[in-house]
Amino acid sequence: MDFDLALERLLSRIEELGAITDTPGSLTRTFLSPANLRAARQVMAWMEEAGMKTGHDAGGTIRGVLPGKDPPLPPLLLGSHLDTVIDAGKYDGALGVLIALAALEVTGPLDFPVHVLGFSDEEGVRFHATYLGSRACVGQLGPEMLEIRDRAGITLGEALANEGWHEGATSFFYENHRSKGYVEIHIEQGRVLDELKEAVCAVSAICGQRRLTITLRGKADHAGTTPMPLRHDALAGAAECILEVESHAIYREGLLATVGKIDVRPGASNTIPGEATFTLDFRHPDDAARERLLDGLLERFRVIATRRKLQLSWDPVQSNAAVPCDTALTRSLLDAVEKQVRARFTLPSGAGHDAVMMATVMPVAMLFVRCRGGLSHHPEEYAGPRDIAVALRVLVDFLSSLR
Amino acid sequence: MDFDLALERLLSRIEELGAITDTPGSLTRTFLSPANLRAARQVMAWMEEAGMKTGHDAGGTIRGVLPGKDPPLPPLLLGSHLDTVIDAGKYDGALGVLIALAALEVTGPLDFPVHVLGFSDEEGVRFHATYLGSRACVGQLGPEMLEIRDRAGITLGEALANEGWHEGATSFFYENHRSKGYVEIHIEQGRVLDELKEAVCAVSAICGQRRLTITLRGKADHAGTTPMPLRHDALAGAAECILEVESHAIYREGLLATVGKIDVRPGASNTIPGEATFTLDFRHPDDAARERLLDGLLERFRVIATRRKLQLSWDPVQSNAAVPCDTALTRSLLDAVEKQVRARFTLPSGAGHDAVMMATVMPVAMLFVRCRGGLSHHPEEYAGPRDIAVALRVLVDFLSSLR
Repeated sequence: MDFDLALERLLSRIEELGAITDTPGSLTRTFLSPANLRAARQVMAWMEEAGMKTGHDAGGTIRGVLPGKDPPLPPLLLGSHLDTVIDAGKYDGALGVLIALAALEVTGPLDFPVHVLGFSDEEGVRFHATYLGSRACVGQLGPEMLEIRDRAGITLGEALANEGWHEGATSFFYENHRSKGYVEIHIEQGRVLDELKEAVCAVSAICGQRRLTITLRGKADHAGTTPMPLRHDALAGAAECILEVESHAIYREGLLATVGKIDVRPGASNTIPGEATFTLDFRHPDDAARERLLDGLLERFRVIATRRKLQLSWDPVQSNAAVPCDTALTRSLLDAVEKQVRARFTLPSGAGHDAVMMATVMPVAMLFVRCRGGLSHHPEEYAGPRDIAVALRVLVDFLSSLR
Repeated sequence: MDFDLALERLLSRIEELGAITDTPGSLTRTFLSPANLRAARQVMAWMEEAGMKTGHDAGGTIRGVLPGKDPPLPPLLLGSHLDTVIDAGKYDGALGVLIALAALEVTGPLDFPVHVLGFSDEEGVRFHATYLGSRACVGQLGPEMLEIRDRAGITLGEALANEGWHEGATSFFYENHRSKGYVEIHIEQGRVLDELKEAVCAVSAICGQRRLTITLRGKADHAGTTPMPLRHDALAGAAECILEVESHAIYREGLLATVGKIDVRPGASNTIPGEATFTLDFRHPDDAARERLLDGLLERFRVIATRRKLQLSWDPVQSNAAVPCDTALTRSLLDAVEKQVRARFTLPSGAGHDAVMMATVMPVAMLFVRCRGGLSHHPEEYAGPRDIAVALRVLVDFLSSLR
């Protein structure tokens, strides 16, 4: 198909898919929701239009297969997720699936098979567990995961069975599967491309992440009767730690550190806080550097707590290793990028993506597309048609160059 | 009565009154609760035993009058409150009422009449409005106040009528009433006397207080994709303000400043806070100094907000002027203090007391009694028998010296 026609169709499909929602007036499609199932069927229809054989797996993920030539070569996987957060934008996830379809409409069948995946769940809204779709794809949706429950008390296993995704599901787990790799196109969800005035870039790695809950305990006292020097104010201690988090990260390349939540006890305006608990979100593309920097920060917390005579403790909440993108695939992507824009550079991805799960069984690469103001997870999320055109050209060129 | 006998009786009455509670196993007596009414009746019985004529007013406050000699002189008022917070200690309030009775048992009738008041509400637990008892006494419980409602939706007026406090109530409002003044003995509820190893001291003034709610607005962004230099983190700004509050007060004599509560939005561990709201409790015994210091602090907040490109706003929540204690009464109290302990000094009261309301119509003075570790509003609140003995001697001596 002609490039311009494929681009036009891609842009209108983004609108069409963005209108399929469980919440009229805003965009919300959560795991196995009626709208998400309608969206999956719509994308499968478009896949069939493009000459693909479609199916779905037991985790609710859909797939379109464009066969390659004989003798069969290992397939390339493209895709992203079809679910959204609540009151979402229409590019997060959807762009990656639809741009893969558009690129294949331009290239037509290639020497190697191409699988386009539309994952059922990446955002984790319904079950508070992310990557359910790609997790199933790589054979990591074990029996204990099927027991997790949504707010209504329905287990993941029941939800899949209720929607009939278990019956007649083609198992296409990619566990122990030989493939060229998985390539995902996704909006950046950050402001760096916008600040640099660049349309696209490749991704170097998906940052590893540690989440901790930090607690400082002092002494709750009467705000009107306790002289300043006699206080053990847990919130003042937390404030000092929060500023330490900020300065620690500002001066360390690649480190992102955030305190997003804080709770204070007893939490009355006329009582000195006896306890303060805050979250720490700590990301760096290099695992060793992240652990070293986190140790350094916690040591600073210890010094602050000791000086203020506060008790310090922390609980690990989450720990994900960094996922480096494949060097060879990324080089091919960058070659294609360089032909379109003069720049050739990578950014780490601070946010997680389906590529994290896919990377457990195959090489992965990602292309970021600029989004306006870095805004994502928001109805005003926007990627411009020119940037989408650049990304489409890059993907077409990348596919054509791949052997 | 013999001093030692009166002291012994005082100590056992503190225990007895502390056992009258709405919540068996802990001490809770709120405005017009069954236990608070029982406590009032018990204290009235003790007042009558001491030769006093008793009555109660339309605000639920009880009074015992020990007549003076002819020709009638203006009365001296003594007292404190009989209500408590939830899970309270047994000295806060009760000590001031019972020590007044004990002192009069020692002195017997004086030249001037003495009124002992047991206020019905100082803590404000039930109606979230403080000083209801003393407010009624000075004629400031207007019709609009009678319309305020408790959690069950009962108005203050209804509550008073239900308990029969309106009928047969002697109106003894002290509005436009000539009296020598009001003297209140109260536990310090702070740690200063404990740190100084002093049993008692007089109070210089009840601190004026400003309460504000401060809001900082930045931009909520993804914690994983927003580079540190591009952030407008409202919590980091609030943390800087909180440390500023602390250092502002540490270096200014007499100033107490506290951030007791903070709320962050959206309040997710992986989202940079877009909004932070915190309370500021700001106390100083001198009104002009307090306003000047508050202006200085808010100016620092402004600088922090501007540098961080955050929007700053604040809402006044409460504003009370300082209540200076009467110089002459306080001098007499200090003379009595000096005879008992070698020290002669005053402290400002950071907490509010019934004396605040009484001061609107007459001179007031206060004596603080050390409480262990400054602990108050807590079941382990404790004032030692030796310190209570010192306070009782001071009060007896003060009463005997007063002309």
